[in-house]
Amino acid sequence: MNRPLILISNDDGYDAKGINDLAEMVRPYGDVVIVAPEGGRSGSAMAMTSAEPVRLRKIKEEPGLQVYACTGTPCDCVKIAFHSVLTSPPDLVLGGINHGDNAAINVHYSGTMGVVLEGCLKHIPSIGFSSCKRDPNADFSALRPYIQKIVQRVLADGLPPQVCLNVNFPVREEFNGMRMCRMDVGNWLKEWEERTDPRGRQYFWLTGYYEAGQPDDDSTDRWALDHGYVAITPVQLDMTAYSAMEGLKTSLMG
Amino acid sequence: MNRPLILISNDDGYDAKGINDLAEMVRPYGDVVIVAPEGGRSGSAMAMTSAEPVRLRKIKEEPGLQVYACTGTPCDCVKIAFHSVLTSPPDLVLGGINHGDNAAINVHYSGTMGVVLEGCLKHIPSIGFSSCKRDPNADFSALRPYIQKIVQRVLADGLPPQVCLNVNFPVREEFNGMRMCRMDVGNWLKEWEERTDPRGRQYFWLTGYYEAGQPDDDSTDRWALDHGYVAITPVQLDMTAYSAMEGLKTSLMG
Repeated sequence: MNRPLILISNDDGYDAKGINDLAEMVRPYGDVVIVAPEGGRSGSAMAMTSAEPVRLRKIKEEPGLQVYACTGTPCDCVKIAFHSVLTSPPDLVLGGINHGDNAAINVHYSGTMGVVLEGCLKHIPSIGFSSCKRDPNADFSALRPYIQKIVQRVLADGLPPQVCLNVNFPVREEFNGMRMCRMDVGNWLKEWEERTDPRGRQYFWLTGYYEAGQPDDDSTDRWALDHGYVAITPVQLDMTAYSAMEGLKTSLMG
Repeated sequence: MNRPLILISNDDGYDAKGINDLAEMVRPYGDVVIVAPEGGRSGSAMAMTSAEPVRLRKIKEEPGLQVYACTGTPCDCVKIAFHSVLTSPPDLVLGGINHGDNAAINVHYSGTMGVVLEGCLKHIPSIGFSSCKRDPNADFSALRPYIQKIVQRVLADGLPPQVCLNVNFPVREEFNGMRMCRMDVGNWLKEWEERTDPRGRQYFWLTGYYEAGQPDDDSTDRWALDHGYVAITPVQLDMTAYSAMEGLKTSLMG
C-alpha cells in the first residue's frame, strides 16, 4: 500500500520553524511535500498572483520529504504544487503551524487558512494549525499529540465535502483538551499607526487588536483559546447566506 | 437631513472605468468617497499589507466626491478609509464595478469582495458589483438601473447583520431580471502556463478556466449569469460549518 501523501504550506515561509515542526510531526503518517512561500506572507488570505509570473525552487529532497519555495502567495503554493510538483493528488493538505492564531474572523485574512481553503476547493481534506505563540522560535512541542491525533483521524475518516478545519492552540504548555467551536465574529480596533518619514510624508503601519464579538459565549473559538482549550473550528466553502435569501428577495426585488 | 455617505473601493485601481462609472451611478443617492488601490490588485482576496507601510494620496475633491489612492490592497483601502479619511462611518460600502465576474467560488479570491467583506466586518451594509465584461473600456450602462435600484433599496432597508451582497452581471446589454442565488462551488482547471525565460529558467503564469460545479442547477449564481440574469448572491461572514460539528466531534474527539 502506498504511504499517504501530505502537502504542507504556510504563510510564514518555507524556512519558518512552524512549518518544519509540522512536517516533522506528521512524517510518521505519510510522505511530506512542502511547497511554501520564499518568505513571510502574513495576512495573504486567498490572494493569488496574477499580474506577475511565479517561480518555484527546489530546496531539498530526502526520502519521505521534499521542500520547495515559491515566489507567490500561500494560495499560489497550493495551486502550483498540484500543477507542477505532485504526481498524484495528496491525501491531506496542511497549513501551518502558523506563528500567531487564526481564530475568529481571522480565517478571512489568514494566508494559512488560504492554503487550507484552496486544498478544500481541490476536494482534499485540509487542516490549518495555528498557535497563539507569535515568537519565531516558539516551542510547539505541546501541540504534537493533538496534531498527530487529528492528522491520523482525518487520514482515516476524511472530512465532509466542502468542509475544512481551522485548529488553533492557546499560549501555554498544557491544554485543557479539544473543543469543537464556531468562529467568533468580533472587531479589529485601532488598525493603523501613523508615522512621518524623514521627508515629512505620512505613512501607515497596519496594527491593532482584536476584540471578541461574544466574549462570554463558550461556543466560540476565541473563548476556547482564552480558556486553555485547543479550538477546532470547522469551516465551509459555501458562504451563501441561505437564511437571508427570502427576506432579501422581498426587499430588493419586490 | 445629512446625505448618505457611500464609500467605494475596488481591486482594479482608483482610475479604472468600473469604479468611476459606479461612483457616477450612485452620486444621486449620497456623497461618495473613493479610496482605491493605486493600480490593479486582481485576486487580492482579503489580503492585508502588514510587512510594509501603506501610503494614501488625495487624487481629487469636489462637492459630493472625494477620491484617494492607496498603495495597499483593496482590504487595506477600506480599513484606512475608516481610520484616516471618513469623519463618520459610511452608510454603505461598495466594491466595483469589477471588470470580470466574481461569482461562484471567486468570492474567495476576489479583491472586490474583499472590500465588501471588510465593510461587512465593520457592520456597514456592503455590496460588490462585478460584470462578466473584462474589457478595461467596457460599457457598463446596462447595469445602471439595477445598481441604482439595489443601492436605493439597501440605503432604505439595510442588510441583515453579517450578510453582504455579491452582485454579478452577464455579458450582454439587456438582462432577464434579477435572481437571488447561492454560490456555485466548481473548479478552476489548467491553472498555470509554464514558460522559459531567456536565461533558460522556468516561470509560471496564473491562468485557467472555471468549470461550474452544478451547471444545470438553476439556483446558482453561475447558472443565472449563463442564462442572462443579474445574479445576487447573499454572502455571510460566518464560515462555521455548523452542520458538520456533531459528526466531527465523534470522528476527531471520540
